[in-house]
Amino acid sequence: MTQPRPAGQHTVRRHNSALVLGAIADSPGISRAGVAARTGLTKATVSSLVDRAIVAGLVVDGEPAHREGPGRRGTALTLSPAGPHGLGVEIGVDYIATCLVDLTGRVSRQRIRPADNRAQPANRVLVKVARAIRSVFSELPVVVGGIGVAVPGLVENSTGLLRTAPNLGWRDVDIPAELRDRAALADIPVLAGNEANFAALGEMWSGEHPELRDFIHVSAEIGIGAGIVMDGTLFEGVRGFGGEIGHLSVDAKGPQCSCGARGCLEAVAGQDAILAQSGVSDVPALVARLESGDRKALTAVRPVARYLGTALSNVVNLLDVPTIVLGGTYAALGPWLQEPLQEELTLRVVSAAWSPITILQSTLGTEAAIRGAATSAVRAIIADPDPFITATVPG
Amino acid sequence: MTQPRPAGQHTVRRHNSALVLGAIADSPGISRAGVAARTGLTKATVSSLVDRAIVAGLVVDGEPAHREGPGRRGTALTLSPAGPHGLGVEIGVDYIATCLVDLTGRVSRQRIRPADNRAQPANRVLVKVARAIRSVFSELPVVVGGIGVAVPGLVENSTGLLRTAPNLGWRDVDIPAELRDRAALADIPVLAGNEANFAALGEMWSGEHPELRDFIHVSAEIGIGAGIVMDGTLFEGVRGFGGEIGHLSVDAKGPQCSCGARGCLEAVAGQDAILAQSGVSDVPALVARLESGDRKALTAVRPVARYLGTALSNVVNLLDVPTIVLGGTYAALGPWLQEPLQEELTLRVVSAAWSPITILQSTLGTEAAIRGAATSAVRAIIADPDPFITATVPG
Repeated sequence: MTQPRPAGQHTVRRHNSALVLGAIADSPGISRAGVAARTGLTKATVSSLVDRAIVAGLVVDGEPAHREGPGRRGTALTLSPAGPHGLGVEIGVDYIATCLVDLTGRVSRQRIRPADNRAQPANRVLVKVARAIRSVFSELPVVVGGIGVAVPGLVENSTGLLRTAPNLGWRDVDIPAELRDRAALADIPVLAGNEANFAALGEMWSGEHPELRDFIHVSAEIGIGAGIVMDGTLFEGVRGFGGEIGHLSVDAKGPQCSCGARGCLEAVAGQDAILAQSGVSDVPALVARLESGDRKALTAVRPVARYLGTALSNVVNLLDVPTIVLGGTYAALGPWLQEPLQEELTLRVVSAAWSPITILQSTLGTEAAIRGAATSAVRAIIADPDPFITATVPG
Repeated sequence: MTQPRPAGQHTVRRHNSALVLGAIADSPGISRAGVAARTGLTKATVSSLVDRAIVAGLVVDGEPAHREGPGRRGTALTLSPAGPHGLGVEIGVDYIATCLVDLTGRVSRQRIRPADNRAQPANRVLVKVARAIRSVFSELPVVVGGIGVAVPGLVENSTGLLRTAPNLGWRDVDIPAELRDRAALADIPVLAGNEANFAALGEMWSGEHPELRDFIHVSAEIGIGAGIVMDGTLFEGVRGFGGEIGHLSVDAKGPQCSCGARGCLEAVAGQDAILAQSGVSDVPALVARLESGDRKALTAVRPVARYLGTALSNVVNLLDVPTIVLGGTYAALGPWLQEPLQEELTLRVVSAAWSPITILQSTLGTEAAIRGAATSAVRAIIADPDPFITATVPG
């Protein structure tokens, strides 16, 4: 966005449209004069851009918010819930999920289909994913302005390739290209990303913890991943492969992991390991047993807290992040993990004595990744609304 | 530097002086016209600022470098080796070191004094450090423009306090304030920082590996620390406590560490552990035995490589850094560590198959920290030369 390029008439308007939509997104109910003050644009420019955005269906002009001085009343501008939506798609190990989010951030449709993707080749699963996307298109009369696809694997930032998804057994899949073909997406932008990264963003953007700026969000399902956010920005590593907390070594002599190494966190404290140890079939059943004080369940969760505490201590000793958000299965197990985790962190983190570490439980739980993927697509629309405006209001 | 503030005449000149000195530092031998082209300042402004910097002794105007078009010959501007120097001070566990670096980056004096600081309270050691600083002042007729102090502990970035140095047994020491008093430093800026962070910067600035932009530098002496550099900038964590690789857990059932936890890298692969296992008294003796093929020495180094490989795999899985620089004792042991380390990384790093990890040996070895500390002070002078100029050339 801020790269130098020839600033022709159109480029300037494109940039200014983004400024205007950003101001309205940050301050719903703002007036045209307020937008001008925030962006530094003239009132005439703001009015012209807002009018175009209204005609294009991105902005709505609501009731007067309040009098602004003796002159004309200011009206309340908000992003339009009927404007283009962001579609989130999540390819889980045992489900496919879709989620539509409008420009205001509201979820207008969310659906999870169980699917055993673990033993399936990529092309068979992507046929089902494409079908799920097309069913969203056919069922709802909204424009989809962008798609975010969350995958349980390593996505290379320079190529967009899914390099590996150990729990799916996939390698080198160009998910955006595959879906563009199979779901006839034409020119809708598609961005694939690691589910743990989307989950961290989803949690931050949910607004439930407004102070979240520097944190690590650990999501456990069948795999374990982490999204690292520093100063409000996702840190994904030089090539996009960072945050692989599931493959931190926590027990040198532990069992073999799907990645080939021994004693990874995922192998000893992932959902499969927890359920196997506690002898139940799913997480809700485990939570029920824990709530009833079942000894076997409590015994199964204890080493999970210790292993997770070791891995998180490593993270804090390296990155000095003040906040940890437990997501996915760990959010559900939070009440039983919180205290032993805090003990392990206090023991192992060198700076713990001066720098308390806050442990939060995700408010979105297993929905964080799909919400983050959909909201990423919405944010991309707001960051560059011009294509949607010029499609409706040429010139 | 780029924070908004009222841009009075003096502020503008201060900012422009920094631009001019930065251009000369980046391109030694540059002409005034070259500085104008690089900075966007007018030739008249550049000439006036350069003249002031020459009078103040920061810049020298050398022989004509080359003809520039048909007009006046350009002359070659360089930073002056006789200008203000940066002084690096390192408080090691068993030594105190000082190092003077001039504006061109040349080391003009370096000295290491053995000192058993391990059992000494901070105030006794700081008396010796202050004496070492004063001896630099008295022996050499140079202006010291800034001091960087490298310490083996956690320095809080908001307060500058050394919060803990486990191998010294120190807590909550305000090193800049203590030294300012004891060495009568008046208004010379003093910056304390973690030795591992300074070592990473020293290695990057040494110019020996010009491609170093994203890397982790692991320094082992009695303690083990790491400096993390991303896109050419030191990453020290939110509060300055990042990079504590020495306290990553590599053996859950391992021996107790000075930090209180079990199985930290430092406890099983620090210099003390290596020497104890190999039955020699110092690192040069160990290297001599390794070179002669001594079996006990080779056996002692093998688990060090495995433990270090586990810790570094954790780092790469979390941060996706493409390059590891082995520093301090690990640089000396590099030839025996490199291959088993690479094997461990290939096994444990999830992205290793697409993202080869380069392992380099530090060229500065145990001198990296002191060089980084001194060069940090030099860079601070170049980033804000105005106080040195106005002291000589008022108005």
